[in-house]
Amino acid sequence: MRKWLLILLMPALAARADEGMWLFNQPPRAMLRQRYQFDATDAWLDHLQKSAIRFNSGGSGSFISADGLLISNHHVGADALQKLSTPQKNYVRDGFYARSPAQEIKCLDLELNVLQSIQDVTPRVNAAIPKDASASAAFAARRRIIAEIEKESLDQTGLRSDVVTLWQGGAFHLYRYKRYTDVRLVFAPEQQMAFFGGDPDNFEFPRHDLDICLFRAYENGHPARIQNFLRFSPGGPREDDLVFVAGHPASTSRLLTVAELTALRDHALPFRLTKLNRLEVLLIAWSARSEENARRAREALFGVANSRKALDGRLAGLLDPALMNAKMKAEADFKAQLAAAPEGSAALAAYDKIAGATKILGGQSVAYNLFENAQGFTSECFHLARTLLRAGDERSKANGERLREFSDSGRLSLELGLFSEKPIYPDLEILTLGDSLTFLAGQMGGDDPLVKQILDGQSPRQRARQLIDSTRVREVAFRRGLYQGGATAVAAAHDPMIELARLVDARSRALRKEFETQTEAKQQAHAAIAGARNALLGTNDYPDATFTLRLAIGAVKGYQDNGQAVPPFTTFGTLLAKAAAMKNRPPFDLTPLWQKRESRVNSKTPLNFVSTDDIIGGNSGSPVVNREGEFVGIIFDGNLPSLPWDYAYSDEQGRAISVDSAAIVEALGRIYGAKDLQKELLTGRSPR
Amino acid sequence: MRKWLLILLMPALAARADEGMWLFNQPPRAMLRQRYQFDATDAWLDHLQKSAIRFNSGGSGSFISADGLLISNHHVGADALQKLSTPQKNYVRDGFYARSPAQEIKCLDLELNVLQSIQDVTPRVNAAIPKDASASAAFAARRRIIAEIEKESLDQTGLRSDVVTLWQGGAFHLYRYKRYTDVRLVFAPEQQMAFFGGDPDNFEFPRHDLDICLFRAYENGHPARIQNFLRFSPGGPREDDLVFVAGHPASTSRLLTVAELTALRDHALPFRLTKLNRLEVLLIAWSARSEENARRAREALFGVANSRKALDGRLAGLLDPALMNAKMKAEADFKAQLAAAPEGSAALAAYDKIAGATKILGGQSVAYNLFENAQGFTSECFHLARTLLRAGDERSKANGERLREFSDSGRLSLELGLFSEKPIYPDLEILTLGDSLTFLAGQMGGDDPLVKQILDGQSPRQRARQLIDSTRVREVAFRRGLYQGGATAVAAAHDPMIELARLVDARSRALRKEFETQTEAKQQAHAAIAGARNALLGTNDYPDATFTLRLAIGAVKGYQDNGQAVPPFTTFGTLLAKAAAMKNRPPFDLTPLWQKRESRVNSKTPLNFVSTDDIIGGNSGSPVVNREGEFVGIIFDGNLPSLPWDYAYSDEQGRAISVDSAAIVEALGRIYGAKDLQKELLTGRSPR
Repeated sequence: MRKWLLILLMPALAARADEGMWLFNQPPRAMLRQRYQFDATDAWLDHLQKSAIRFNSGGSGSFISADGLLISNHHVGADALQKLSTPQKNYVRDGFYARSPAQEIKCLDLELNVLQSIQDVTPRVNAAIPKDASASAAFAARRRIIAEIEKESLDQTGLRSDVVTLWQGGAFHLYRYKRYTDVRLVFAPEQQMAFFGGDPDNFEFPRHDLDICLFRAYENGHPARIQNFLRFSPGGPREDDLVFVAGHPASTSRLLTVAELTALRDHALPFRLTKLNRLEVLLIAWSARSEENARRAREALFGVANSRKALDGRLAGLLDPALMNAKMKAEADFKAQLAAAPEGSAALAAYDKIAGATKILGGQSVAYNLFENAQGFTSECFHLARTLLRAGDERSKANGERLREFSDSGRLSLELGLFSEKPIYPDLEILTLGDSLTFLAGQMGGDDPLVKQILDGQSPRQRARQLIDSTRVREVAFRRGLYQGGATAVAAAHDPMIELARLVDARSRALRKEFETQTEAKQQAHAAIAGARNALLGTNDYPDATFTLRLAIGAVKGYQDNGQAVPPFTTFGTLLAKAAAMKNRPPFDLTPLWQKRESRVNSKTPLNFVSTDDIIGGNSGSPVVNREGEFVGIIFDGNLPSLPWDYAYSDEQGRAISVDSAAIVEALGRIYGAKDLQKELLTGRSPR
Repeated sequence: MRKWLLILLMPALAARADEGMWLFNQPPRAMLRQRYQFDATDAWLDHLQKSAIRFNSGGSGSFISADGLLISNHHVGADALQKLSTPQKNYVRDGFYARSPAQEIKCLDLELNVLQSIQDVTPRVNAAIPKDASASAAFAARRRIIAEIEKESLDQTGLRSDVVTLWQGGAFHLYRYKRYTDVRLVFAPEQQMAFFGGDPDNFEFPRHDLDICLFRAYENGHPARIQNFLRFSPGGPREDDLVFVAGHPASTSRLLTVAELTALRDHALPFRLTKLNRLEVLLIAWSARSEENARRAREALFGVANSRKALDGRLAGLLDPALMNAKMKAEADFKAQLAAAPEGSAALAAYDKIAGATKILGGQSVAYNLFENAQGFTSECFHLARTLLRAGDERSKANGERLREFSDSGRLSLELGLFSEKPIYPDLEILTLGDSLTFLAGQMGGDDPLVKQILDGQSPRQRARQLIDSTRVREVAFRRGLYQGGATAVAAAHDPMIELARLVDARSRALRKEFETQTEAKQQAHAAIAGARNALLGTNDYPDATFTLRLAIGAVKGYQDNGQAVPPFTTFGTLLAKAAAMKNRPPFDLTPLWQKRESRVNSKTPLNFVSTDDIIGGNSGSPVVNREGEFVGIIFDGNLPSLPWDYAYSDEQGRAISVDSAAIVEALGRIYGAKDLQKELLTGRSPR
């Protein structure tokens, strides 16, 4: 029986292992002092915060030199690598090394964010919501005030300004970021070495991956001058060391009610897995047809398989009675406390409101996923077409009335994506669009009137071919023209893909409106619960992850598995031994370069290590730092028992997995001959 | 726009291309005379019928020597190859060649059937159904009379005796088969050469597969003396030659009503694909972990991927408005004819009855698939456990009251499977059972009371491990003991897997009872429609496929694809060219043996060819014969446009794909050095 820690019932400061994705403006100083005799000073926190990077493509990273050098995972950088690749240069598979500054390649649409400040704007947001407003009116009012705060902040500071919803609606904080959009690729290993062991070893430990990728931030055409960067530890951490993780966990669901978790378990996760399994089979089969197909689908296939294995693990967590029973017991106990408390009745009623909203959302979730989440239209072209269509409609509205992604404060990021020169492959587009239209028809029924209009008298594959062959949204100049021309230009283009997006837009928007209304209702209910929890249990806690900067705290520690001790470190030696034991067969093969140079590395150098830091997807690429704030490793995964951390943390077996900083130094020098990069890591200055 | 031929509205003898899976007791003699100037004599048909073989594991074959040598596809024989394989000997991957009679290996549970006679028993079956009986009572009466006829025939003739339902219930024929259960493996190529091009080339043409497997039937410990075998043509067929296929198409759905096809399109096929995609991803991921995993899962993975691609193609057919609109028009036209005919009202009403029954079946189909079809319990052990449980319960009932698979006439075949010494791998069992229990929970909801009882307070994976670790049904002696001991012994064993089967048996049986009742209702309705169709359009037609022997008629013919002519033949030369063009990368790689000996083969020798013969899954391994009844090839696939033949035939692009007899002779001699087998093919006698 696994012990699951449930923050819901944990009084502050109780011994609660290393759970927590802490806000940088509400760090657990007392706990750190008590448990680890560590004093987290403002300066220490500020330096770490400003060294940490968010990859807007999904992931984390950190600055490691004063000259803009930064590090993340290969699998975070793979999106950029894929977009830069050509039939002649497969950077994802073969890696990349810029031997001189001139060879550093500019990424096509990569945006990095560095958090400058956090401001609690909860009172201002809540004050703007009329009393007794319907959920729909409350949502509109909240959207308006958030857009206003963001725009005001952007105008005042020039910084990217996002109001973040915390505690499922219990608080609203304004996050201001410095943006970097001239980001250049400096170094990537071959994917096989970054992802040695492939899908079989993904989310497993022991592990042997050099999952790193180096970029350099530029400003005004020159390497950015960076004040806050992490000093690189050439030796890495030791067993039992206290290590921190500063990164951007994308989302967790620990505060969800049992009703919400049940809906995830029985509907949302099985549906997502159905789509992912389907897409994985489709991409595997297509990739097997030719080397060029495999190159084109490479990053998409990695992403799909990675998500599939992660969701399998999460679903297994929800299907583990130990976890779910603990959740039910915790909720029942807290409700009993509420029932006994004078101020508890609103929070008690909130549970029913959440259950009611969850039921409504469940009733429309398949359609919502197919239409608004566009899972029935899996193609880049459809996304571009819909963005153009909606940009035309939304941008003429007042800032506070628009769909969130079209607000003034997000304009630059929206345009970066919309005008990206990334390659779009018609054959792959036809494949995924045709398959997703088939999925749509299967889910909605072939006689559904909207499905019939979508297919327009053709089979899904014929229709996909026709759409992709005839749309012009693949052309960046065409997109720019329509975006600048607004709704009139969009309508005048009569582009078939845009017209398809228009055909389904009423349905999509109706589904989204209901989604937003019910989400607002849930947020208000969660806010009531959060208020009662803080009153009853104290406020020293952390909210669910929201792809914003968090601090995790843990120690380098092995664990027991089936009665066997799993030590916390692997080494270059265990990597070579594993490849040999598997006869160098994929996915356990060393690349030719590694085969040639394997004797150069010290077999005792640590390669990967595990720690008890509380992380989740989005933390990939997060720096791991020691007490001195030195970079000792980089998060790239969690093990299988960590996957249910989406719902509850347990350090019985769950672990974060990192590449050791010692391995990075050694591989750059001895395998890749990148002495200048090695030097830049160790000195914090580019020798170039 | 594709032209789909719909037998529903085709008057007999109209020019209807080469459509038809003809009954051997109702061959289209007149059509053959008219269209091909061919006289199908009784002797010609009788010889072909008795040379044709049904593989009870699913597939077709034929005798090709007087000494019991027979041929089928590698992918039909793969079931036997897999069961004979060990970690040391991977016959599926590496192939097999018995260099002497003593080296021929006995298959573990392979049953071959050779059709001896067909008898129309429709009047006797229908006379046993009480007038105005409810569907449920009618089903019981029909089961009783069928069991009686089968048992009577078995006792009289000693032959396997199956009453087959034709025309969806319009007729009942008694098929009598000679059984062979001592079947020995003689030769198989490497799977890579049988399945060159892998999944990408599966169901495609041009094609380059040596998809053959040779066995020998034994009787009383000696090679069987075979009267009827096919003379082998060393040269194969020529373009435009008339060629026949005698094989066992498993099932088609051409006579289904629009209501039934719609249910297939919107529910049954999407559900099956969901399960298949999931299983494919699971097996691929597990196979990547080690060479031994890959060996264990090899045949299952092939089967899953093959079914997935076939069903994708079928679903595409149903989602092609050209096909579905033609079906709707044909049904509307026929209903108009019925409305105008005096005897038409019963048939008209039958359409509504079918729609009603289809709706009821649709309402329970997910549960039916999960429980009675055991898709929630994917493991050999569960199937064995349920067979033991039910055998205990059923065998004490009167023969006519039992579930069909436990009737006296099927006893030998049931026992062959139940007592098979085939290997069962606990790790693979845990994998598939755990995943299918997760699927079950996702489909039924984790709070479903029966699901909770099934999981017994554990997660799906924990529960699967516990069940597989503790059940004894893997032991053949244990199974024999319980089977002989009957229900009492089964209960006394307290075997956890059997108890799981018991736990779900009430639910499963209830679902099955409703399925049988509604199927009976549909059969009666289809019989009424069939009667009206025969009255209005004449009786010279063929029923949907039922895994019984059928005759297909066609010509060796290429087709046009995207404006390009696809010639009907590929050759050894085009195989070698393809491998070279793909740089010998999997799945387009030649095996080491072929790489070594490729220069020995004549590049002009035909390898595969296409013809217009009307086939479907189950026809794999069917002999292709010329006017003289000579073996000129062996069916192994249909191309993508043939996949919708499940619903309607079209020869515009749809083609059957065969291995050319010339390629077989040449590969056996020049690549595999199997001169004795080559000689046996050419002389019809074993030189051994």
